Amino acid sequence: MGFLSERSRYAQNAIEMEDSTAEALVEKGMKIIHLNRGDPTYYIKTPKYEIDAYKKALDDNKVYYSRAQGIIELTNAIVKRYKVLYNLKFNEDKVIVTQGVSEALSMLNSALINKNDKAVLFSPYYPLYITQLKLNGGYAILERYDESNKWNIHIDDLKKSLKFIKNDGKINKVKYMLITNPNNPTGTVMDRSVLEEIVDIANEYNIMLVSDEIYDEIIFNNAKFTSISKIAKGIPHIILNGVSKNYNATGFRIGYVIIPEDDKKSLALRSKFYSYSMVRLSSNTPAEYSAAEAIGNISAHKREIQKFVKLISDRVNFTYKILTENKYINIVRPNSAYYLFPKIYLKELGFKNDTMFVDKLLKEEGIQIVWGSAFGAPSHVRIVALAPKPILKYAVTKFNNFCKKYAK
Amino acid sequence: MGFLSERSRYAQNAIEMEDSTAEALVEKGMKIIHLNRGDPTYYIKTPKYEIDAYKKALDDNKVYYSRAQGIIELTNAIVKRYKVLYNLKFNEDKVIVTQGVSEALSMLNSALINKNDKAVLFSPYYPLYITQLKLNGGYAILERYDESNKWNIHIDDLKKSLKFIKNDGKINKVKYMLITNPNNPTGTVMDRSVLEEIVDIANEYNIMLVSDEIYDEIIFNNAKFTSISKIAKGIPHIILNGVSKNYNATGFRIGYVIIPEDDKKSLALRSKFYSYSMVRLSSNTPAEYSAAEAIGNISAHKREIQKFVKLISDRVNFTYKILTENKYINIVRPNSAYYLFPKIYLKELGFKNDTMFVDKLLKEEGIQIVWGSAFGAPSHVRIVALAPKPILKYAVTKFNNFCKKYAK
Repeated sequence: MGFLSERSRYAQNAIEMEDSTAEALVEKGMKIIHLNRGDPTYYIKTPKYEIDAYKKALDDNKVYYSRAQGIIELTNAIVKRYKVLYNLKFNEDKVIVTQGVSEALSMLNSALINKNDKAVLFSPYYPLYITQLKLNGGYAILERYDESNKWNIHIDDLKKSLKFIKNDGKINKVKYMLITNPNNPTGTVMDRSVLEEIVDIANEYNIMLVSDEIYDEIIFNNAKFTSISKIAKGIPHIILNGVSKNYNATGFRIGYVIIPEDDKKSLALRSKFYSYSMVRLSSNTPAEYSAAEAIGNISAHKREIQKFVKLISDRVNFTYKILTENKYINIVRPNSAYYLFPKIYLKELGFKNDTMFVDKLLKEEGIQIVWGSAFGAPSHVRIVALAPKPILKYAVTKFNNFCKKYAK
Repeated sequence: MGFLSERSRYAQNAIEMEDSTAEALVEKGMKIIHLNRGDPTYYIKTPKYEIDAYKKALDDNKVYYSRAQGIIELTNAIVKRYKVLYNLKFNEDKVIVTQGVSEALSMLNSALINKNDKAVLFSPYYPLYITQLKLNGGYAILERYDESNKWNIHIDDLKKSLKFIKNDGKINKVKYMLITNPNNPTGTVMDRSVLEEIVDIANEYNIMLVSDEIYDEIIFNNAKFTSISKIAKGIPHIILNGVSKNYNATGFRIGYVIIPEDDKKSLALRSKFYSYSMVRLSSNTPAEYSAAEAIGNISAHKREIQKFVKLISDRVNFTYKILTENKYINIVRPNSAYYLFPKIYLKELGFKNDTMFVDKLLKEEGIQIVWGSAFGAPSHVRIVALAPKPILKYAVTKFNNFCKKYAK
């Protein structure tokens, strides 16, 4: 009708697309088991010391518009976190607090992307990367994580693509390259050697590297996580993180961005993040104070995260084990976050695509998972292993039997 | 350098531009009196029942990703508010909760503005209207509030402009017309008769009308406020509001949008607001629960708002009285919000412009106010009358003496 903007058609969250179907079923009286939500707070209580700090901020009337960049107690706590966890050192002015990583993605793309600019993303990707890129007029150079190599990045493909773009004279249109490590939806951690190659490539082609590390403490099965900053010294890069996952505080909406370097690009982008933060005045102030305590109280967090990761890894490994009994899927063993991302042998099961599979599973068995297409990885599905084991056992066994039922 | 996007140069908040100068002075040991911040929480405590509800939500583990549109308790409370205050009726699905009105402005412009689209704004305007419009590629048709008519809209000028644009064949590029009532920075309420003319004009030219009514309960000196919805029945329009001002909870970052009509444009835009809300997952969940109680507990709010408005009107009228002793300014008496927006006879005082006046006042007297240019109204300044009376007396007398000192 010409009233809405062209960009507005990209305003969507593919993860939530099945939600209306599920709601309609619930209204009809069906009981749905949700293995679709990446939100631990439904099953595991947010640590008391975080809640207490939040309440104290409220009691202390910390309810004003706070510093746009984020309160200094929080940016300082974030500096401390990186020192303690990774022995990384930077000043608090390198940190910008955002209303979740969602807002950080919006600011990043608004600050960098002109019409027809590009960003390198990897499938399977978190859907809002694409959404924010497209809302700002850009498009993705879609590379891939390699399922046959524990979901590490397929380096050769990436090199070929960038070489081609460079020869085409358009490499300066590639504004950034975004990796997710640990990964949602695959639940895997990238090998340090692969990360090193990525950093070399970013350096060679002079592309800003963005690493979404929001699950960086939810690591198990002896996996080793490496923050991009450990490798990308002297190279323009950005870390995205927040309290939603490691601190089990999704509804606080506190994320952050770290731009640790002082090269020209980093300086320019950091200054823009300050400006964008002023445009929305401030984040939720008492939530910032809670986040400052959540992150800054290292010993309290240490106790909490150990319990948290133990609980989650138990549930993920438990789910993994049940899934290995399923002959109609292929699955890479997860070692981080709380996702399982099996490939479904759809053809053998008589399904045309993953969306039909997920839709049928929901309608027939009352189990909601997310289709892989939402992450740019058709013929996969994402299962969230946060529910208590009896529920997981019940639901994932149903999932297995559902596959069996449709097997030809 | 070609790294940053073109739009990113518009990412700025003109109100905060003097802040770095002020901070530098503070670091040098100077004491600054801030009459620049429109944030009542610094001086007046946020009501206890709101804080209690917030803490209860935290105790009840309401810290998950909540419904993207806003929790139903809050949207229902907003419906109730409009029924009780204005006898307006609409369903809760007409409401979308946002992270402050700032986010609502971002969504509005992203949803509607293509490159070179236009919006009708009126100066003096709230600076972030322009920022969000420009960030999305649009530009303003800048009409004006008329100082000589108690800051009501200059209707004849508006009619002429729109007629011209229509004759030029570009009226469908005008996506919306945004008014601020009660007004920031002028502190005045629009006459109902003028509002009626505005609605007629919006209807005649088929332009979506947006009314920012965030100060709608901070009314005094016998002024009468009329919500746009009372007049614009059957005509596409949007209300912007939130808990920051009337509920004295700026740092909660809870705003909302109401799109009450069901015409084609309203339906399309409302559906986009839903989509945009999903793109950032949810607002801060415990803050939403607090806002639901803040707004929904009508009797508690009634008690609080009476005290609040009494206190503020006292301070505004007190400040107004001191300012009337100043011969080098002209001021329209405010009857809402907490702003005073005098015109300064800069020439008589030997100042080239309002920014130099404000800058000098800050550096010489330690009093920070905001220059009118930030609102598109040069030769004016905005004074915030939220501080206690002794501070106001001290600072505004200094302001008067400063003018006297420079008078030729």
